[in-house]
Amino acid sequence: MTTRSTRVTARPTTKGRAVRTQTLLPGTDGIGTVRRSVLPGGLRVVTETLPTVRSATFGIWVGVGSRDETPALNGATHYLEHLLFKGTARRSALEISSAIDAVGGEMNAFTAKEYTCYYARVLDNDLPLAIDVVSDMLTGSLIRQEDIDAERGVVLEEIAMTEDDPGDQVHDLFATAMLGDSPLGRPVLGTVDTINALTRDQVARFYRKHYDPTRLVVAAAGNIDHATVVRQVRKAFEDAGALRDADAVPRPPRAGARTIRGQGRVELLERRTEQAHVVLGMPGLSRHDDRRWALGVLNTALGGGMSSRLFQEVREKRGLAYSVYSYTSSFADSGLFGVYAGCQPRRVHEVLKICREELDQVAEHGLSDEELHRAIGQFSGSTVLSLEDTGALMNRIGKSELCWGEQMSVDATLERIAAVTPDEVRAVARDVLGQRPSLAVIGPLKDRQAARLHESVA
Amino acid sequence: MTTRSTRVTARPTTKGRAVRTQTLLPGTDGIGTVRRSVLPGGLRVVTETLPTVRSATFGIWVGVGSRDETPALNGATHYLEHLLFKGTARRSALEISSAIDAVGGEMNAFTAKEYTCYYARVLDNDLPLAIDVVSDMLTGSLIRQEDIDAERGVVLEEIAMTEDDPGDQVHDLFATAMLGDSPLGRPVLGTVDTINALTRDQVARFYRKHYDPTRLVVAAAGNIDHATVVRQVRKAFEDAGALRDADAVPRPPRAGARTIRGQGRVELLERRTEQAHVVLGMPGLSRHDDRRWALGVLNTALGGGMSSRLFQEVREKRGLAYSVYSYTSSFADSGLFGVYAGCQPRRVHEVLKICREELDQVAEHGLSDEELHRAIGQFSGSTVLSLEDTGALMNRIGKSELCWGEQMSVDATLERIAAVTPDEVRAVARDVLGQRPSLAVIGPLKDRQAARLHESVA
Repeated sequence: MTTRSTRVTARPTTKGRAVRTQTLLPGTDGIGTVRRSVLPGGLRVVTETLPTVRSATFGIWVGVGSRDETPALNGATHYLEHLLFKGTARRSALEISSAIDAVGGEMNAFTAKEYTCYYARVLDNDLPLAIDVVSDMLTGSLIRQEDIDAERGVVLEEIAMTEDDPGDQVHDLFATAMLGDSPLGRPVLGTVDTINALTRDQVARFYRKHYDPTRLVVAAAGNIDHATVVRQVRKAFEDAGALRDADAVPRPPRAGARTIRGQGRVELLERRTEQAHVVLGMPGLSRHDDRRWALGVLNTALGGGMSSRLFQEVREKRGLAYSVYSYTSSFADSGLFGVYAGCQPRRVHEVLKICREELDQVAEHGLSDEELHRAIGQFSGSTVLSLEDTGALMNRIGKSELCWGEQMSVDATLERIAAVTPDEVRAVARDVLGQRPSLAVIGPLKDRQAARLHESVA
Repeated sequence: MTTRSTRVTARPTTKGRAVRTQTLLPGTDGIGTVRRSVLPGGLRVVTETLPTVRSATFGIWVGVGSRDETPALNGATHYLEHLLFKGTARRSALEISSAIDAVGGEMNAFTAKEYTCYYARVLDNDLPLAIDVVSDMLTGSLIRQEDIDAERGVVLEEIAMTEDDPGDQVHDLFATAMLGDSPLGRPVLGTVDTINALTRDQVARFYRKHYDPTRLVVAAAGNIDHATVVRQVRKAFEDAGALRDADAVPRPPRAGARTIRGQGRVELLERRTEQAHVVLGMPGLSRHDDRRWALGVLNTALGGGMSSRLFQEVREKRGLAYSVYSYTSSFADSGLFGVYAGCQPRRVHEVLKICREELDQVAEHGLSDEELHRAIGQFSGSTVLSLEDTGALMNRIGKSELCWGEQMSVDATLERIAAVTPDEVRAVARDVLGQRPSLAVIGPLKDRQAARLHESVA
């Protein structure tokens, strides 16, 4: 083992080293060309061209999320995301926000279980500014004690706000029901106790450990030029001293396989809400699972729109809910499938019975040809419609690079969706929906009503 | 007075009558061309071209909202909006939703205090389908008793869902504080009592009375051709027998002037929430008031982004809230200005004190040159960025036609924003923010804490 200082002096510097650039997708008429460069230092830069707009979205993805936290550090990733807006050696918090506000841009960030993303959407002329500001935030955060202190209150308010939104919180409760007290099961925001306990040293260590160029993906989409973006990103990172080890290579995407247990569980949070908010669901598929296309079609037909089975049965025919839908969450090694409904507390058993019957019905018989055909059309059309927004394009290429290490063209995506067969859907319906479900409920249910909830997961 | 039947037979028919078309804004290189046609029958059709996208948004605006309801009919406009999705002579509810779902489009509607809008966003090839479906819903709704019965439950669930979202509900409470039990002060959704009492006859009468071609504005934006849209809309409305009176002319925009009283009021809804949700505000400006541009700039600087005063003072420096912002609501004859914050119940007086001080400070001294400059940049940039979305374009031209009867180009808008002077901002700050505020609070406040709320509106 060499010591740290020996290794650092032995490293070749990145100065003058060549950037490796590939065209991953050719695009058509200059639209949809996706390129990737890997900078010396292991930093990936992916871009997609959309020259018909006058704007661009610039983002930096970090391959760290709440599942990388120990129990004591729960919430550190998200707390850190807040702190990156609080100032660098070059800019105060006000200077960071003023820079983007002054040009009418939108800047924000989000933290998930497996990644964190910071981004700014601006007019194309302001892209160099966005690159400079967001790169500065990522590479030069000060994480001062006073910022930790002030921001602790903000994060605690965010937790309180979520607790005042039961239609949101029930999804966290469902994750707890399915995944228990595991890294993936814990809330992204952390808890009041963990946030109150986190120290400056812990958060700063977390930042130094995870915000390494090899774990970052820079993504830009819109009216942009790849080489210019790469040059500006390289300059910003080199000036910050963030690209030091010329031999560093990007970290490969997370992978693995994990069996989620916890079927038949019921989590009830008794609260004096107007509605009972429920999620009924089961283990889903990982983002690397080939069956995910068939599950996407199935999810669309079951609870993806106004013509879906659940919307028709629960809302349209019986008027039992305003909001009812199904959804999938995918992680590197596992996933979840869930059905949400909000209804009168006294109708909760009726709603759960209908949802369970529809799940069982589809698990046994699959979809009708008409449903399959419509779901494929809906899935395809909404994919195409989503691609006019540079923010959506940036998300798509950034997440693809980080989570799969490859890009898929729109045409290839549409072909894959169109190729989903009735047999594939039947098989995935049996595999996923045929499992014993678990249940999360927030609402004013007690005693006999609460006890009856177990019927729907029997 | 002639009788109704005499008048009908005496009316000239619209068949063969010419459409009057004007180019309202020329656009540049085929982008941003806005045209208006008035069909015989008094139906307005406005379109805006954006040939660089492959999609279109089609919408129909109706000049009716909750302020057109009597107390007993409160919620009828919104209930009716739901019922229009339940079926026509040509399509069942499932056929309406299936048609748009099958092509991956998004269809929805919204009801406000002064208008209702139904819209679909689709790929450009599917625009004829969207025109046919949305026009059919507007002109051919059956409003059957069984649909009224099923949908009553859905609307009641929507009310319950809103009551489970105090950060949303507090805005309704603020409207009550400012406007009392007046048409403009009542909630768009109605109440449990009014929704339970509404009958099929009442809703059907409301539909026949208000969904008249002269009160509608059809708006389309995206990769569209004006003449084609007009032809398809005319056919859809004529086939439905909805354009009968060739001499009918469009209804002019709502106007008028109204003084909002109610300063110094406090409305408290005691609820066991985690946060106290507050809106502190005062009478604002009507949408016809020339001072609205200066108020827009002022609102941006005060609470429109991360660099705004309220964000800096309440969140950035003191960590007292996660969400804090200011906003304006404009109506034909009046308006509201409000500041929202969500915070720990025990910090509510501190937060209100800071907000009040900032309002007073700006009322007295206006903005700094730097704030004014940044707010103008932010207002301008966000205006331009919003115009890449065909949904936003459709909203802009449809609402402009209905509410102002004229269109304003982006360039003219940017010029008007840039022309806002420090003096204008100082004057509007004094006029609006200098008024005595009212307050709405949802949270677990009792006794002495509740009594103290009056301090912030003294």
